[in-house]
Amino acid sequence: MKPVSWVFRCGLLLACNIHTAFIPNCRVHRTTAFFISGWGSKKKHRKVKLQFTLDKMADPRIEEILAPLRASVKEQGDLIRKLKASEAPELDVKKAVAELKIRKKTLEDKELSLVPSAATFDRAKLEDLLRRRFFFDQSFAIYGGITGQFDFGPVGCALKANILNAWRSFFVLEEQMLEVDCSILTPEPVLKASGHVDRFADLMVKDVSTGECFRLDHLIKAHLEKLAADKKTPEGIRDECQDIIVRLDGMTKAEMSAVLEKFKIQSPLTGNELTEPIEFNLMFATQIGPSGLVKGFLRPETAQGIFVNFKRLLEFNQGRLPFAAAQIGNAFRNEISPRSGLIRVREFTMAEIEHFCDPMEKNHPKFENVQDTEMLLYSAANQMDGKSAELHSIGQAVKEGLVANQTLGYFMARIQLFLIRIGVDPVKLRFRQHMGNEMAHYACDCWDAELLTSYGWVECVGCADRSAFDLTQHTKATGVRLAAEKKLAEPKVVDVTEPQVNKGAIGKTFKKDGKAIIDHLAVLDKDGLLELEKSLADNGYYVINIGGAEFQLTPEMVSIKQHQKTIHVEEVIPSVVEPSFGIGRIMYALFEHNFIMREGDEQRTFLSLPPVVAPFKCSVLPLSNNTEFQPFIRQLSQDLTKLDVSHKVDDSSGSIGRRYARTDEIAIPFGVTIDFDSLKSPHSATLRERDSMAQVRIPLDDLPKVVRDLAYGKTTWSAVEYMFPKFEQQESVTKAA
Amino acid sequence: MKPVSWVFRCGLLLACNIHTAFIPNCRVHRTTAFFISGWGSKKKHRKVKLQFTLDKMADPRIEEILAPLRASVKEQGDLIRKLKASEAPELDVKKAVAELKIRKKTLEDKELSLVPSAATFDRAKLEDLLRRRFFFDQSFAIYGGITGQFDFGPVGCALKANILNAWRSFFVLEEQMLEVDCSILTPEPVLKASGHVDRFADLMVKDVSTGECFRLDHLIKAHLEKLAADKKTPEGIRDECQDIIVRLDGMTKAEMSAVLEKFKIQSPLTGNELTEPIEFNLMFATQIGPSGLVKGFLRPETAQGIFVNFKRLLEFNQGRLPFAAAQIGNAFRNEISPRSGLIRVREFTMAEIEHFCDPMEKNHPKFENVQDTEMLLYSAANQMDGKSAELHSIGQAVKEGLVANQTLGYFMARIQLFLIRIGVDPVKLRFRQHMGNEMAHYACDCWDAELLTSYGWVECVGCADRSAFDLTQHTKATGVRLAAEKKLAEPKVVDVTEPQVNKGAIGKTFKKDGKAIIDHLAVLDKDGLLELEKSLADNGYYVINIGGAEFQLTPEMVSIKQHQKTIHVEEVIPSVVEPSFGIGRIMYALFEHNFIMREGDEQRTFLSLPPVVAPFKCSVLPLSNNTEFQPFIRQLSQDLTKLDVSHKVDDSSGSIGRRYARTDEIAIPFGVTIDFDSLKSPHSATLRERDSMAQVRIPLDDLPKVVRDLAYGKTTWSAVEYMFPKFEQQESVTKAA
Repeated sequence: MKPVSWVFRCGLLLACNIHTAFIPNCRVHRTTAFFISGWGSKKKHRKVKLQFTLDKMADPRIEEILAPLRASVKEQGDLIRKLKASEAPELDVKKAVAELKIRKKTLEDKELSLVPSAATFDRAKLEDLLRRRFFFDQSFAIYGGITGQFDFGPVGCALKANILNAWRSFFVLEEQMLEVDCSILTPEPVLKASGHVDRFADLMVKDVSTGECFRLDHLIKAHLEKLAADKKTPEGIRDECQDIIVRLDGMTKAEMSAVLEKFKIQSPLTGNELTEPIEFNLMFATQIGPSGLVKGFLRPETAQGIFVNFKRLLEFNQGRLPFAAAQIGNAFRNEISPRSGLIRVREFTMAEIEHFCDPMEKNHPKFENVQDTEMLLYSAANQMDGKSAELHSIGQAVKEGLVANQTLGYFMARIQLFLIRIGVDPVKLRFRQHMGNEMAHYACDCWDAELLTSYGWVECVGCADRSAFDLTQHTKATGVRLAAEKKLAEPKVVDVTEPQVNKGAIGKTFKKDGKAIIDHLAVLDKDGLLELEKSLADNGYYVINIGGAEFQLTPEMVSIKQHQKTIHVEEVIPSVVEPSFGIGRIMYALFEHNFIMREGDEQRTFLSLPPVVAPFKCSVLPLSNNTEFQPFIRQLSQDLTKLDVSHKVDDSSGSIGRRYARTDEIAIPFGVTIDFDSLKSPHSATLRERDSMAQVRIPLDDLPKVVRDLAYGKTTWSAVEYMFPKFEQQESVTKAA
Repeated sequence: MKPVSWVFRCGLLLACNIHTAFIPNCRVHRTTAFFISGWGSKKKHRKVKLQFTLDKMADPRIEEILAPLRASVKEQGDLIRKLKASEAPELDVKKAVAELKIRKKTLEDKELSLVPSAATFDRAKLEDLLRRRFFFDQSFAIYGGITGQFDFGPVGCALKANILNAWRSFFVLEEQMLEVDCSILTPEPVLKASGHVDRFADLMVKDVSTGECFRLDHLIKAHLEKLAADKKTPEGIRDECQDIIVRLDGMTKAEMSAVLEKFKIQSPLTGNELTEPIEFNLMFATQIGPSGLVKGFLRPETAQGIFVNFKRLLEFNQGRLPFAAAQIGNAFRNEISPRSGLIRVREFTMAEIEHFCDPMEKNHPKFENVQDTEMLLYSAANQMDGKSAELHSIGQAVKEGLVANQTLGYFMARIQLFLIRIGVDPVKLRFRQHMGNEMAHYACDCWDAELLTSYGWVECVGCADRSAFDLTQHTKATGVRLAAEKKLAEPKVVDVTEPQVNKGAIGKTFKKDGKAIIDHLAVLDKDGLLELEKSLADNGYYVINIGGAEFQLTPEMVSIKQHQKTIHVEEVIPSVVEPSFGIGRIMYALFEHNFIMREGDEQRTFLSLPPVVAPFKCSVLPLSNNTEFQPFIRQLSQDLTKLDVSHKVDDSSGSIGRRYARTDEIAIPFGVTIDFDSLKSPHSATLRERDSMAQVRIPLDDLPKVVRDLAYGKTTWSAVEYMFPKFEQQESVTKAA
């Protein structure tokens, strides 16, 4: 929540650059200006606004405070570079990185504390509004609730549906992506191949008596920090604590277990003993089918559903690269201790894109459409140097190699445009590059779109180049080659090493295991085949091992043929660029970014969501409960329905000002009031705009279409103000809320 | 699949009644006529078409065949009525009902076998198309697949999304319902209260050696049927088998276990021994959180999420009844043996509505809008009498008490209108009333919308009056009163019996249990309170039992106050009318109902889905790979995107006829071809309609808007044919598919 006066000044400054007509409200300005100005001025708008903010933040007095913190980060960053250059042991590098992260966090916290808007935001007030108007609430609240699960009420649900529709239109329709809708229940082998069964885990310990669980690293850190802060602790121990805290991130289970024992760490709640550390996989496990033999998990991400369907999708795209698939759906993570409202939950909606392309050709045909987009990039290098994020055009960033390739850059720019379109505050959006050590082992470059909230900068969209990792893993696990064919510029003569398989002989000897053996032979690489040939020649047999069982093959069953072949196509395993959206987190950021307080009335707050995502587009209010208004209300509601304009009739008692305040709270951008003048011919009503509270008087016949055009961005409020007479009656604001 | 010629004749007949311009294709006719004619003629259309079909089915030769089967059903129905009238033992009634069901099934199977269209439908051909064009496929197919789980590919996913959007617009927007989006993971107590933990189970047995599972009733039935059919089985045993089969539906676990033993039933696959019968709950179980202490399930329906949020929703609706809430989402049932493709699956999307109303006031304000809707109703009485379904107007059906109340009738009519709008064949839709014994114990009337497919009549939408069951259950379980206040016509003086609770005293004695005790006292009814008062007076104490623990209350802690009070409102527990849509089943029926074979070419099949739900609205095809076409294709694609018209560019090689056939298969209703004439000024292209294959030539400038208007039902194909010149070139059909 920021005071309107500040917003106003900021808006004023920007308005000069785009459209002087859009005064007096910066928010209205943002949402309407974008619609009429097209990409060009939208980009310019963001650039001006960002530069303004960056200049503000580069205030010399602020920089003076931050200078030593920046120096401290840079010192550590330089140390890491040196360690890496001298090929120091991995543990030393990890330790140095952990320290770097701590210093970065200190710098960032300080930076944020110096931003004026953060000081005036009142999260309790926002949360009160969200709960009171049932945007969302804890699930099963009447049963005491479950942490980390939320139900969206009517307005939250409509907002979410509108965001998803906007996403579908912006990405799937515009880029002609192949959208799929895959199963949530996933059998174990799929998630074993993807790495989730083995690696998607946190270490935890339990209170032996109550069973209460604690995330092990959080527990150790809290205990040692307390110890280190205690003046009575001997200096040597304090240093040791500091040392362990710094190293915690890279510690093994055994090392952490030793720390638990050495410091006799007990449950901070009860003082009871704790169990040994347990690997806790964050996936929800269940059994598929009645036998209890098929273990399954609720998917932890939607991406795998796309990968396992790669072959069919490629076929649907007539065998051609590049193409993108997309999926919207729920995913699940059994967090040990969920917190921070919608930001860390157990059940969440994701929208993911997997763009498959030739690994040698990562240019993007539409990159030129976005290359001038100005983005706030927080590169790995700047993070190491204690610098802030910097404005770059994405074209320049790709050219200079800061962003790995055009395809990644294209999606980053599209992500930014989308987020701003649905109401993200452009000055609270940055892209942070993963540092080498943070990156998943398969990713070659990764940028997170982070949104600034009262919880700090929150990762809301990831955008990673996952290379060929997933397709390779599923190919290994299934023997089904997930690859595409690429036409060669000119035919090529190559040496081919192929197994000649005698299926009959294998089937006769190994019966039902025959198929697995044949599949196994089909995916052997060249080295494997040569080894097989050698073994057959030297020993007269070759042993293969499938899932623990051994099978002895003879020269009668398989031989190796080497020959030359002219090929016109080559097989490539596509690279994958993956933009992955956390819808709940984006929604939460939207709430914060659009929470506004009426100037001069701190009690009167509202949500200034853009019409494209606003839960209802319009309210329909009779001035009073006079029965003469009813047929007009009914007719108007029908007419709006015909035009697919979602709306809310509020014919409850309460002053009109009070009802406006109520509709403002649930972000309804436009409000129609039927009053006594509506009864006279020609019939008309008032139309009010939420952010400016300005009103015009419009003939009832024109009204539904005008509201529809406003709601879908086909006209602007200023155009409506120009066309219809202003309605001057002041609304009472005193009895609001 | 029905031959076009039949459709054509049928269409012709109907066309006379509505709009002679709509010849020559009944399917086009159906989808377009509805849009321009409004409800009135849509209803008439259905009535005529239905009457036509019913007359056809009432062919005297057919009736002759069916007569003995009808008589056999009626005989059994009469027996049941007699048993019920004489208050015969429940088991005898159950046994008689089971026999009735068998006779009904025999009658229905015979009836269906006599319908000509059923004979020509080729399911294998449809399934081949659906798989080949990736409408859907088994999930995790490259891992061998999982039965009962399906992934929707690009066209299936788009169809599903369009159906859901149409649903949202038809129900949520039009009726101003409160849509919510609740958690899938549900803690045990919620589903304990709803009855799912105890009752949502099937009995099964396992092969002791392989662990293979069998649904017990299916297994016994199959075994005994085989035995009864065996000529070598002695007559007495054969009769016993028949008797058991008939009684199976009402048997207890112990009785079935005895049957297993008596007949020495073993695994039909291996001949191994079987385990004792096991109650297998159909919900997927998991653990929420890391402690292993919070048991949860994947929700088996979306309804409960709405019930537990009732209080907040009522508040959102400003405390007023009636109102409806809605939810679209996934639900899960761990079927023992899923089968029949999309019809019985483990993971499925539902769209549910819970309409809350005053139990004394089930009239519906908008009932008059639908009262003339003609519906094919298959009443419980007709089912008992061996009669067929009959045409009724819903107004008449409610008036005569056939359908319990206006609200139920209103939703039934709306369900029918919706299904027809999205492409259900009106003659393959009926509403079947649950018979008394089929009804869930809480329902007071229930009608299923059934769609006729090659699997027989399949329940696709349930529409039940659930009375106050769910809200009452959750109130009992939580102590939170899920009720509404209703203003009395005039104030009333009532006797009030209330507990006077000394919270301090209770808290002091029982510490942390105090709250549970106070909650318990708050929900005691009048009888409970009087018992408490008596016990305190007689014994000096009163013992309450909460979850197994006993607490002894003294007169100091609680007393009972009786007094008179003038009340202006009374509390009512709302009745719930629940329309519940199975989206996957509806989709499957749509596939069958819209699967059409081109006249004269059996190999050339296509899906005639109405534009409103078609996966893509339009195809964009260059006549050949001539590079001069490319800028036109690109521009057109951009223009369509701007108007939110989903489309598919097919610039692959292959004749234009072949590509048309491909787009017909994925149900694209309109196709644009850029040809050599397009290159000349004024630029133009051809536009083709899928069902009639008719083409017109349209200026490129007009094209995007015309396609948009066609796709969203704002104009009709015949209007377009009237406005633009016909394009005569014959498309090659021979190389199709």
